[in-house]
Amino acid sequence: MRSIYYFCDMIQNDTIIALATPSGAGAIAVLRLSGKDAISRVSDCFKSVTDGKQLRDQKTHTIHLGHIEDANRVIDEVLVSVFKNPNSYTGENVVEISCHGSPYIQQEIIQLFLRKGCRMADAGEFTLRAFLNGKLDLSQAEAVADLIASDNEASHQIAMQQMRGGFSSEIAKLREELLNFASLIELELDFAEEDVEFADRTQFKTLIDRITFVLKRLIDSFAVGNVIKNGIPVAIVGEPNVGKSTLLNALLNEERAIVSEIAGTTRDTIEDEISIGGIGFRFIDTAGIRETQDVVESIGIKKTFEKIEQSQVTIYLFDAPSVLRTASPKGKQFEALKNEIWQIKNKYPQKPLLIIANKIDKLDDAQLASLQAAIPEVKPLSAKTGFGVEQLTNALLNLINTGALRNNETIVTNTRHYDALLKAFEEIQKVKHGLDSGLSSDLMAIDVREALYYFGLITGEVTNDDLLGNIFANFCIGK
Amino acid sequence: MRSIYYFCDMIQNDTIIALATPSGAGAIAVLRLSGKDAISRVSDCFKSVTDGKQLRDQKTHTIHLGHIEDANRVIDEVLVSVFKNPNSYTGENVVEISCHGSPYIQQEIIQLFLRKGCRMADAGEFTLRAFLNGKLDLSQAEAVADLIASDNEASHQIAMQQMRGGFSSEIAKLREELLNFASLIELELDFAEEDVEFADRTQFKTLIDRITFVLKRLIDSFAVGNVIKNGIPVAIVGEPNVGKSTLLNALLNEERAIVSEIAGTTRDTIEDEISIGGIGFRFIDTAGIRETQDVVESIGIKKTFEKIEQSQVTIYLFDAPSVLRTASPKGKQFEALKNEIWQIKNKYPQKPLLIIANKIDKLDDAQLASLQAAIPEVKPLSAKTGFGVEQLTNALLNLINTGALRNNETIVTNTRHYDALLKAFEEIQKVKHGLDSGLSSDLMAIDVREALYYFGLITGEVTNDDLLGNIFANFCIGK
Repeated sequence: MRSIYYFCDMIQNDTIIALATPSGAGAIAVLRLSGKDAISRVSDCFKSVTDGKQLRDQKTHTIHLGHIEDANRVIDEVLVSVFKNPNSYTGENVVEISCHGSPYIQQEIIQLFLRKGCRMADAGEFTLRAFLNGKLDLSQAEAVADLIASDNEASHQIAMQQMRGGFSSEIAKLREELLNFASLIELELDFAEEDVEFADRTQFKTLIDRITFVLKRLIDSFAVGNVIKNGIPVAIVGEPNVGKSTLLNALLNEERAIVSEIAGTTRDTIEDEISIGGIGFRFIDTAGIRETQDVVESIGIKKTFEKIEQSQVTIYLFDAPSVLRTASPKGKQFEALKNEIWQIKNKYPQKPLLIIANKIDKLDDAQLASLQAAIPEVKPLSAKTGFGVEQLTNALLNLINTGALRNNETIVTNTRHYDALLKAFEEIQKVKHGLDSGLSSDLMAIDVREALYYFGLITGEVTNDDLLGNIFANFCIGK
Repeated sequence: MRSIYYFCDMIQNDTIIALATPSGAGAIAVLRLSGKDAISRVSDCFKSVTDGKQLRDQKTHTIHLGHIEDANRVIDEVLVSVFKNPNSYTGENVVEISCHGSPYIQQEIIQLFLRKGCRMADAGEFTLRAFLNGKLDLSQAEAVADLIASDNEASHQIAMQQMRGGFSSEIAKLREELLNFASLIELELDFAEEDVEFADRTQFKTLIDRITFVLKRLIDSFAVGNVIKNGIPVAIVGEPNVGKSTLLNALLNEERAIVSEIAGTTRDTIEDEISIGGIGFRFIDTAGIRETQDVVESIGIKKTFEKIEQSQVTIYLFDAPSVLRTASPKGKQFEALKNEIWQIKNKYPQKPLLIIANKIDKLDDAQLASLQAAIPEVKPLSAKTGFGVEQLTNALLNLINTGALRNNETIVTNTRHYDALLKAFEEIQKVKHGLDSGLSSDLMAIDVREALYYFGLITGEVTNDDLLGNIFANFCIGK
């Protein structure tokens, strides 16, 4: 990757181009150019078929039908949208060319503008320019990538809230209050000899407590945010042929009917991650469950434990008729089952465990009653008929505390933000300690400045080239 | 598929929606709505963040930043483009929503508008509406699909010319002249008893000759057009390990360097079809060539013949050092080689054959000279060093008569057009025969009308629901 220094120094003087829509053939494709000369560069290669005016003479936020021409050879009939600085995504002059969706045409148009002196945009460079031009702060820019990657209601909602500045404004509020006190403390330094206290220590303590509280809430929210962003890992464990894949399909049918109407949602994604009630659940190692002969008894409880360790929720699935057929509730196999469940509970007392008796369509009422008597928390289910599937999805949802989500509270999903918040928290703890122990203003000022620094890292008020490089390299090209 | 009758009767009363950009995740995605109520439907769910005006009050060809909202839940921040009837692709009110490129968001917005009474567009329905509203004739509409599918300069140029009306205008010219004479002949029918001739038979004969000439040219162009559209099938035959896959890779490296800069050009496409000098060459059964032990000697010349039969050009490749090593130019293996080449030439005297001696980097000058003395037309090549590859690509290009392409002549690429032209040609021959044999006006009028009917089929002046159904079902959804 080109050095980020190059970005920040040169960026706003050249015109970048990239395909903004997914690659491949479609009805249309959109190519995006941004830079001081974007409009005049396109104007030189564009012939309007309506009013005959030069593109450079058109108003902002208008659309024009015409031809992209390369020395009188018509490459395509296109719609061109004009956005004038500063009223564009990047804050620069922007042109969007909506051409026919042939990869050949996309390539021809890009090559034309490369010859005319534009250059291919780097990953995330449009959003980087938006950030550098003050259209977005850093956490908002990061939310753009999260928004594009969001594949369920919860992750979409969090990214949307963050992109619209929800997270930034919460951080900004804390930062501003802290900054007020910081300036009072720094003022004290100027009058060090007079030993005055401009910053009321009691008020300052109250503020530090409030900041501590908010930081703690944000830091704690990361646990929720992280699983929402990445999907909640669920382990389905059990012997072969207890119906694991049938259960997965039943969950799929229940929840993914709508998604399948949209082309491009690949089977792979559906199979691995299922969106239930707007939350993504990632059924880990499901391919393994389906393909390998994963016998708990033979390979041992160890393999089961490995799976559970990678997950946040465990579904223990067993074949109810088979267990009842081969033994009475007091028989040997039944004891083995209870023993296994006990082992899991014993090893992972904090991890939610859902015990599911599958194939209960083959049981009579008496058998079901004896099963429930033996294992009170068992949930009866028939993956085949769909009985109990809804109860299972409700149980999964209840396990996830999404109270914050519903209350529109800020949830941290970004590891970088999380790290900065942890660091800010540490510094605030130092300030608190300093206050308690009557630390001198000059030393306390250092801790406060450090905390302010970490707040600034989140929103991008404090930044450096490596940081920007890391963030934007993860974007797709064209964004 | 919904009955086409439904299309034509109901179509213009409802609002259709579809994803216009390729499916999958990208920086942005474009959703397109068309219909009488398209603007007001979007207006109801759109909140401007700039001027606060209702979308329905905005001018045509303007772009607006705002939120797509579902009962106060913000689905996305989007750009909305407004096109007012008749100044749009379909000729109806059209709205394009440019949203963040997350499949989840695309789905949410589509679902929202389906709930608001829009329906999913059928394949090609936007273009069908454009045709029904007189924005395009039928051959132009078909060219839209060809344009999107075009993957090299030649097919792109032909589709572009056809979309811009080049083909239609040629047909229309013939049709109009024929129509003039037809009306004169039909007029004669009204005066049948007086035995007058309004249509000058000599002039008519000249016209029929001209039409015959043009039709013949168009019909003949189909051979070129078809290979350009579908790629020119090339068989590479030869024993195993003579370097077929290395040759393919060398051709790839020579010509596809630019394409590989654009993401999404899949390896598969590159491997099977190579664009050389703007023409697509389809190396048939290349997977087979690479993977199977396709021994000409052992499986016999039959398999080689099968491959040649599917192709338009044959490349016969042999390992020069190996042939020279195992035998002198007069030896047994050399004779076998010459015999094989003779068999191919004998069976397919019309089919271009390129004889390539590979691995000549391992020969000395004397060996090369003896080879060229024995087989004068042999082309020396080294797939490994790249020597001779350019000569080969030039030879391939020379084989294809693209004079018509360079002269900007109309080339027929569409099987439906080809069939209609053949039928029109037959009818014109009947008219010619009638003229020669002094057929009565009423009988001749029938043949002329038939010819006119077939011209009309091409441009869509004559049409029926089945025809439209067949044509537009092959489009992608969203176009």
